[in-house]
Amino acid sequence: MTDSSQRVIGVDPGIHHTGYGIIEQVGGKIRYLESGTITTNPRNLFPARLQKIYSELGRIVEIWQPTEMAIEETIYAQNVQTALKLGQARGAVVLAGANSGLSIAEYSPKKVKLSVVGNGAASKEQVQYMITRLLGLAVTPTSLDESDALAIAICHFNQNPMIRG
Amino acid sequence: MTDSSQRVIGVDPGIHHTGYGIIEQVGGKIRYLESGTITTNPRNLFPARLQKIYSELGRIVEIWQPTEMAIEETIYAQNVQTALKLGQARGAVVLAGANSGLSIAEYSPKKVKLSVVGNGAASKEQVQYMITRLLGLAVTPTSLDESDALAIAICHFNQNPMIRG
Repeated sequence: MTDSSQRVIGVDPGIHHTGYGIIEQVGGKIRYLESGTITTNPRNLFPARLQKIYSELGRIVEIWQPTEMAIEETIYAQNVQTALKLGQARGAVVLAGANSGLSIAEYSPKKVKLSVVGNGAASKEQVQYMITRLLGLAVTPTSLDESDALAIAICHFNQNPMIRG
Repeated sequence: MTDSSQRVIGVDPGIHHTGYGIIEQVGGKIRYLESGTITTNPRNLFPARLQKIYSELGRIVEIWQPTEMAIEETIYAQNVQTALKLGQARGAVVLAGANSGLSIAEYSPKKVKLSVVGNGAASKEQVQYMITRLLGLAVTPTSLDESDALAIAICHFNQNPMIRG
């Protein structure tokens, strides 16, 4: 990059709740921009729920213009059925990013926790606490999905330190 | 529907190979239109492979203009990792259909086999044989994914007999 800023969207996919968080790195400093949760209605048909994740995320990317997407590598699911559903939500997230021209990076949950809390086995609550401190947020993110997404975004910057121009 | 024709695309999703088959029902008779396999390169990045499935399927839908999509309900996968990958491919297929405005129906593998072979435990080869006969194809579909997709499409018509106008 020729300028010294970099903007990433971290995403924690799920069919019920998809957390997202956008941060940027300017001159080596990390700045919080936006975060939230996309929630789908279980009463809606499954294709409509996937469409909501895909289109909402596309809209957020259009507004905030990140150039990179970071997603947590899913390595655990209760069972095959859960994995199939989660996989579909994840597919919608990856496609929303790729179809918007973003490069996509993946990090294991352990790497994300290690990067943010300094402990690969940290609880989601610890992650939430550290995110609030690291980003200097006045308010704790509303949901754990949201703080997870921000943690993934921070992990991405830690793995890819900006090469200053 | 006011006219007496109905066109469906059957899809058998997979990250390596996604089979598809388009058939139509005119005045109670089923007619074969097109079928094939979308293959992705394992050397490409995963998001690019999902994009290929999504965009190729979108292109095929645009050309053939089906109004309905039928997909096999995935109820089996070797393990959670396989299910997560398959789920993502499936998500790309469902989104390609839904974003093109198609209604989407799902059928269990057992129902598909029962509908086409008359035996819920039929082999993929038996399905392929019956598809070739039922659709009066001069040549057997090249791949099992392709004949599976056509079987899903036929199953859809059997479950939703056309209400004649």
